[in-house]
Amino acid sequence: MDQADWAAVELAAGELRLWLMEGGESVTASCGDDPGQTLRALLLPMLEGGQVMDVVACGWPGVEPVRVPCPPPPPAVPMDLDPRIRLHALPGLVQDRPLDLLARAVPLIGGHLAVVPDFDGVLCLPGQPSAWVQISAGEIVSFRSFLTAEILSALDAAPRAAFDKAAFTEGVAQAMSRPASLAADLSSARAGLALGRTDRAAAGSRMAGLMIGVELAAARPWWLGQNVVIIGDCPLTELYVEALAAQGVIAAKADPEQTRLAGMRAARPRLSL
Amino acid sequence: MDQADWAAVELAAGELRLWLMEGGESVTASCGDDPGQTLRALLLPMLEGGQVMDVVACGWPGVEPVRVPCPPPPPAVPMDLDPRIRLHALPGLVQDRPLDLLARAVPLIGGHLAVVPDFDGVLCLPGQPSAWVQISAGEIVSFRSFLTAEILSALDAAPRAAFDKAAFTEGVAQAMSRPASLAADLSSARAGLALGRTDRAAAGSRMAGLMIGVELAAARPWWLGQNVVIIGDCPLTELYVEALAAQGVIAAKADPEQTRLAGMRAARPRLSL
Repeated sequence: MDQADWAAVELAAGELRLWLMEGGESVTASCGDDPGQTLRALLLPMLEGGQVMDVVACGWPGVEPVRVPCPPPPPAVPMDLDPRIRLHALPGLVQDRPLDLLARAVPLIGGHLAVVPDFDGVLCLPGQPSAWVQISAGEIVSFRSFLTAEILSALDAAPRAAFDKAAFTEGVAQAMSRPASLAADLSSARAGLALGRTDRAAAGSRMAGLMIGVELAAARPWWLGQNVVIIGDCPLTELYVEALAAQGVIAAKADPEQTRLAGMRAARPRLSL
Repeated sequence: MDQADWAAVELAAGELRLWLMEGGESVTASCGDDPGQTLRALLLPMLEGGQVMDVVACGWPGVEPVRVPCPPPPPAVPMDLDPRIRLHALPGLVQDRPLDLLARAVPLIGGHLAVVPDFDGVLCLPGQPSAWVQISAGEIVSFRSFLTAEILSALDAAPRAAFDKAAFTEGVAQAMSRPASLAADLSSARAGLALGRTDRAAAGSRMAGLMIGVELAAARPWWLGQNVVIIGDCPLTELYVEALAAQGVIAAKADPEQTRLAGMRAARPRLSL
């Protein structure tokens, strides 16, 4: 292994994903409650005698989150793990009013700003949770996260193979005009399926439209008249693009993997100083 | 077994619950896709030679639901199962606008009207789903069901042992004044827990308050100025009582098991004519 190599790590929902940087390979491992043990088991066998490896991690436990507004990205914090692993953890972002917390999305923010340093606008980051992040004058001004994807997957309503665009768009419009009726409108959609009046594609697409529509209703200040860039690798990402387009917002899309790794890379030079 | 005995059956979520009536015992069995086979296996060994048993079932597959408005309860429909089991199934209720379907709650409606025949008002039926049923002039006028409990349990947010009344009441008030922010406010509550600013009881109670609050916002025509009776055996039932009380609605409570069996019993005499 080349001395120049380093690694990026993302922790989310009990899984650890490791990228061997420059090489570009990645592996995913279940890590339970002890990501340090998992990371050591993955990395140490790769290291030659005396070699020390830089690792940038996102979502690592025990790192104090940084309060917004703040300049992006917040600097990575050195963590004590192993003499042969120089681990630095990217802190999450915390917001006091309304109270909110962001962890997994932080490298996407840093990565986008590494590519577009003077970006002024909003990042829409579909995922579990989804997040809207306002960036202005070189600062992360505010953000808001939503449990949309988690609720949808719990309802077994996330559309898989088949997507019914008309049903989705109707769901978005319905939720944006009557957001309070969400739990009843979801129940209606399921009733339509049980009664055989709609097929699974239409019911699932409508439920996805309802959930994303109610998110758009609450997130209106984040997209109305804003410069929006969408970065996401979850299956709902295209649906956010569709739903925003139906509101007349043509959002740009950035590649999530490239942006994430750019964020990890941007956090790294400061490690080696 | 006495010739006067009969049985009531409820099917929900792949489980079959059987009550031996008059005796009052009940058993629950997992039934998968074939409730008929499960019911035969439970009942036939109890029957003496030549004995035929009446069974009233709720949630049985293949029964056409009855369209509201309709007089309650809709008559039970004879089903072909076994020469020794005289099975009658209670149909569900269907509503066209807004589209909605009710199955498991039907015996509660019939049972309440068996006990209070001239009831005029609204039944609030917490459960998966919860339902609000408007009854007037001897008719089921309309109803609305909500996936509230299912979403809450998916978020692992249903308060168990500990209940934080202040956090719950705040959640209800917050959701009723800003229902569109639901998915973001749920995310805030979880952030508070992750940041150690609230404990599990407070976070779970707040999330329950948010979900029930947004249901109350959408169900306002069903409880505002109405005579409301709550009938439910799910753990959220007391929370509906609390949330309605915070809106100045003192809802009466009826016993769910007794009401359900009264509903099954009310459907039975018509079988034996």
